[in-house]
Parts: sequence; structure tokens; C-alpha cells
Amino acid sequence: MNPPVPTGLAPGAMLGILGGGQLARMMALAAADLGIRCHVFAPETDSPAFDVAARHTVADYEDQEALARFADAVDVVTYEFENVPAATAAFLAARVPLHPGARALAVTQDRLSEKRFVSELGLAVAPFRAVDSLADLETAAAELGRPSVLKTRRFGYDGKGQVKIAPGSDLAQAHEAIGRFPAILEGFVSFVREVSVVAARGLDGSFAAFDVCENEHRDHILAYTRIPANLSEGASLQAVDAARRIGEALGYVGVFAVELFVLEAEGDLAERVVVNEIAPRVHNSGHWTSEGAETSQFHQHVRAVCGFPLGSTARRGRVEMENLIGASALRWRELLAEPGAHLHLYGKRDARPGRKMGHVTRVTDERA
Amino acid sequence: MNPPVPTGLAPGAMLGILGGGQLARMMALAAADLGIRCHVFAPETDSPAFDVAARHTVADYEDQEALARFADAVDVVTYEFENVPAATAAFLAARVPLHPGARALAVTQDRLSEKRFVSELGLAVAPFRAVDSLADLETAAAELGRPSVLKTRRFGYDGKGQVKIAPGSDLAQAHEAIGRFPAILEGFVSFVREVSVVAARGLDGSFAAFDVCENEHRDHILAYTRIPANLSEGASLQAVDAARRIGEALGYVGVFAVELFVLEAEGDLAERVVVNEIAPRVHNSGHWTSEGAETSQFHQHVRAVCGFPLGSTARRGRVEMENLIGASALRWRELLAEPGAHLHLYGKRDARPGRKMGHVTRVTDERA
Repeated sequence: MNPPVPTGLAPGAMLGILGGGQLARMMALAAADLGIRCHVFAPETDSPAFDVAARHTVADYEDQEALARFADAVDVVTYEFENVPAATAAFLAARVPLHPGARALAVTQDRLSEKRFVSELGLAVAPFRAVDSLADLETAAAELGRPSVLKTRRFGYDGKGQVKIAPGSDLAQAHEAIGRFPAILEGFVSFVREVSVVAARGLDGSFAAFDVCENEHRDHILAYTRIPANLSEGASLQAVDAARRIGEALGYVGVFAVELFVLEAEGDLAERVVVNEIAPRVHNSGHWTSEGAETSQFHQHVRAVCGFPLGSTARRGRVEMENLIGASALRWRELLAEPGAHLHLYGKRDARPGRKMGHVTRVTDERA
Repeated sequence: MNPPVPTGLAPGAMLGILGGGQLARMMALAAADLGIRCHVFAPETDSPAFDVAARHTVADYEDQEALARFADAVDVVTYEFENVPAATAAFLAARVPLHPGARALAVTQDRLSEKRFVSELGLAVAPFRAVDSLADLETAAAELGRPSVLKTRRFGYDGKGQVKIAPGSDLAQAHEAIGRFPAILEGFVSFVREVSVVAARGLDGSFAAFDVCENEHRDHILAYTRIPANLSEGASLQAVDAARRIGEALGYVGVFAVELFVLEAEGDLAERVVVNEIAPRVHNSGHWTSEGAETSQFHQHVRAVCGFPLGSTARRGRVEMENLIGASALRWRELLAEPGAHLHLYGKRDARPGRKMGHVTRVTDERA
């Protein structure tokens, strides 16, 4: 079977989405605005995205029969999470256009290949070493010094799969703590802030970035995003340029996020950024765009993967996005009564601690 | 069975919607933002709202078995069209809260009762007479003069079910043209513009109106809505006050629209408005609110019928809404490429002439 040639779709087309969480749900809501129908594929029977999709399939990502039926029923496939199994991506890509493509997944699923990819583009990253054994870890820790961070190469998110190597830490214990999985050790970067660039690349190679945003994490989970970021013009251009180069090198189609550390100006060095992570998908730090930008990241992603022209990324004011984690979503009535607050709930039943239940955006006039 | 006492719901609740067109579709999209699930009930198998609803029922509005199952499955019922059969409304209202209520439907389904209701509130309407026979029509035409307009009391929309009585018109022919249905004759009002007020009333009696908008019709179908309307401060207050009084007198819960004619200042009379029609539902002339106001009319309606606090109706700038009728929706790619244009397509397959396929909003900074 020849891989299908990607071409632009038209309203009425069926967009296939792997994953049924809040990102898929908000993609499906945006797709509806553009007359695009959605078919959501996810293993969990109570996936929040099912409630707003024309069709859904409950099956494992490895279920080839279900995947084949799904591929036949849709015009293009995208996904809401970077851990789509490589075999699943390849199986689908042979049958139907897959955006973003398999290369974006391969590079970003593995912290080591991601770090190598970014540094080969000539972009700054934290110093890193591959760690396949305790011996590797000992060498790496000696070379990079302490503190440093040991991270599994795969399947880490929201602080899971990583452990800090402090001056007194026992290396064997740390290696044990991450399950002795293939890992990398990252040298310490003394950053003052975390920012991200949410950007899109169209099927025609066009590129559009939203304004750089500043992220505040609590317990390793994104708590607030604020725009504009506290960032010099120079560092901001550097960040957007990094995103542009990453998108181009990946032949990327869709929305992606690049998380960066901000390093303070120091001696002759101006304020600058270091690439931390790439997310090949719409991203929590882009939720502010729903009310804060002319085009939301979800509309932008649907435009890109359908081969439509990208929309304007112009910002509408000063914006704050607050994540509603766990029980904080129980404040919904108070938030509905707050003038200027825009509530987004994900339709999840149990407000478990640490679970992303929704978010709020607040847009204020910059000139006010 | 006692009618249920209306109370506020919480996210996770199931909203039942009668009708599956674009208004139901946009309600369902808004409901999703608030964590409300939707069950759409409509007779047409290809209803656009089905694609974005958690559940749907295909059945006639008179199918009591299907209605009973629907009532059991939802926490509150609303509708997207004013012609819900009275028996259907009564059947549902006995089982589950129905918002807006049966009284709003009864009054607005019948042009004669609507006109009487409005004039009894002391609000200006066009002169009118009931027409149940050709003899009635002859008397009425003599009293109200020509030109005047003969309109069926029920089921008229977008100019259907009405005929103009010009100086040379044959009355018997006109009576025939509207199928000899019970009708009213409306005297001619020499208006310079048409405006509407889209407003909401909460379960707690709170009231919030969006800014008065100006409507331009073509071939009896809304073509453009522009905000702010070209209207004096006095006439604008009069229009919003009319909406407030109508909402209160109906004990209304939800979003509704009041269409008004604007009469020019004349001698001692300042510019003033005359009530033309009430729509007990979200309304095409309120579509501009999606990008043009802090809260869209769809979010506002969901808030109201769920017993949530009403949202801010603050306007974001100068707004234009353009309806995409029939083949004009084929311009979708050009509209997607237009900076600042926000495209909304309804997922309808055939772009038949006169069919509402989508709309575009354009918001520009008023101070620019």
C-alpha cells in the first residue's frame, strides 16, 4: 500500500483523533466550528471527547482491526498525546494522512533523541548524557555535576519518571527510583522563568506562532500561564525562531509547543532561552488562546491538519490562564459569577487530586 | 405527576434539546465548555447537532414513548425553535424542568396572542386585526389601509406565510395565498431600520441584555447584523426596556430575542421603536456574540436554563455578522484566509439556495 499523499480537505470531512481527553475534546469543539466532523479513538469508555464527537471507537491503540476500520472511516488522523505507539502511527500513516507525522512522534517520544535533535539544530539545550546503566549514571553525574536530573527517555509527563540528583543523593537509589529504564541525565540549568511557544505549521509549510507565554508550575503541573511573558524582545525572538526551526526540521503539520527555560543576562550574555521540551500536539500552555487570541490553538490545529490556511495569532490583550486541578474545579459557580472569567470544564466526573478538570481564562485590556 | 420544581444544576448534568439544527448545535458546543452534556431530540436523521452531542434521539415531536424516555434521560429541557407543539411542551414539562416555559411558547407561537401580549404591556406594536375569514380581511384592510401585511398566525418564518396587501392587491387572492389559515393583518409601519435585542433571564429573575444590534435582511432572510446599531441612546434604552418587560411578563428563563422597527424622529416625537416579533430562543441576530461579546448567547442560554449565574454581556468592539446563505458558504477557504474573520459552519451537506449554512463574525477595535 502506498502512503497516501496529503492534500487539503473540505468542510464535511471526518477528522480522526487518537486519544479522548480534554485536548481531543477541545479539538473536536473547534473542528465543529469549521464544519469538520470528528471520530475519536480511545481505550477508555468514559473519554471526555466522546461527548462532543460524531463518532467514537473504544479500543486499544494496538488493536489493528479497530485501527483499520478507523482509518477507513476518516479523512485524516491526528492525536492529542505524544505517546502514540510507533507501530500504531505507522499502521495508520500507511492508510490515511497522519498529522503531525511519524517523525515528530519518533523524535519527541524519546528524551534522548529529542535532545540530540534540538542540539543538532544548533539550539541551546541543557547538557545531557545517555544513561543505560548505573555505571553510565555514575560517569554522567561526575561529568555534569550536581544538582542534575535523571529522567526516563520515554513516557514521562507532569514530573513523573524523573528524580533529582542532589549533592547527597545515592545514585543506585535514584536509578532504582526511575525503574532502571533507559534514561538521560540532564545538567542543572539555573533558569529564572519557564516560557513556551505554541506554534503551528501548515500543510503548505506556512508558520505562525502565538505570543510567547510564561508558565508557572506547582507540584510539577502547570498552574498558570500568563501572556505577555516577562521576557526581553531578543529572547522572545530567539524562542519563536527555535520553534520555527524545530517545526521545519520535523516537516511538522499541526500545532506544537516548545517549552524553554529563561536564563538571566550575565556579563556579556543577554537574557537567553534554552529548549527544555517539545510537545507534538496542542498544549496546556496554549489554552489561553481560546479567548486570548484571534484563533485558538485548537482551531489552528484543525486548520493545519486539514490543509486549511492558518489563522491569525494576534493577541487580544493581557491574558491569564488558570488550570483547575482536582478539587479547585468545585469553584465553578464562583468562577461563572466572576466578570470576565471564561470557564472551560472537561466533563470529567471525579475531581481526583492532581487531575486536570478544567481551566479559566481572563483577558484584560492592555491599554486599560 | 407533580411538575418538577426547577432548581440549579451542576456540571455533569444532561441538557435535553428539542431540535437538531444549527442553533441546537451551537448550544451543545457552548454546553460542553461548561461541562454540561447534551441529548438532542429531533426527527431528522442527519441533524447537524447530533455530531456534537453526547446522545441523540431520532423521533417525531409527537412520539410520547420517545419523549418519555428522553425526559427520563435528561435534567432539563430546552429547544431551538418556537414551534414545539404545545402538547409536547406540556408532556415534557410535567416530567422535567422545561426552559423557556410553556407560556413563552404559547404566546409566541401565535402572532395574534403575541401582538396582544406585547400591546397589553403598553409597548408599541404595529396596528393589527385578527383575520379569520375573507370578510374579516376586507374589514381589516379598510381599517388599517394599504399597504399592509397579511400573516398567518402560526408557523411563519423568514418571510414564509405572509403576503403584502398593496393598493391594487386582490384580497381574496391574498387570503388564498396564505392558505386561508387564521391570520392577522398588520398595518404598515414606515420604519427606517430593523434592530433586535438579544437578552437573557436567569432562573433567579436576573436580566442581562446584549447591545442592541442592527439587522439587514435580503429576501426576507437575515443577511447581516451590525453592532452598535445606528440608534439614539433613548431608543436603545426603550428597546432594552421592552425586552426586560417582555421577559418578566413571560416569567422567562433563557435567551430570547425581540425584533423591533425603528421609526425616525418626527415633529415632537423622538426616534422610537416598535416591537415586531419575539423569538423564545437563541437567535440568528445574536450570533455576533460568539466573538463579539464576553459571553456568547449560547453560553448565556445554557447558563440560564441550568440555573447558573448569567455572564457578562460586555461587547468587545465593533462587530459584523454575515450569514452564509446557500452557495455563499462555498467561500469558506477565502473566509478562513481573511484576517480577523471567524468562520462558523453548521455541518450541513447541501448548500441549497436560501439555506443557512454558516456565518462569519468580524470584530474590529472601536478605538482604532
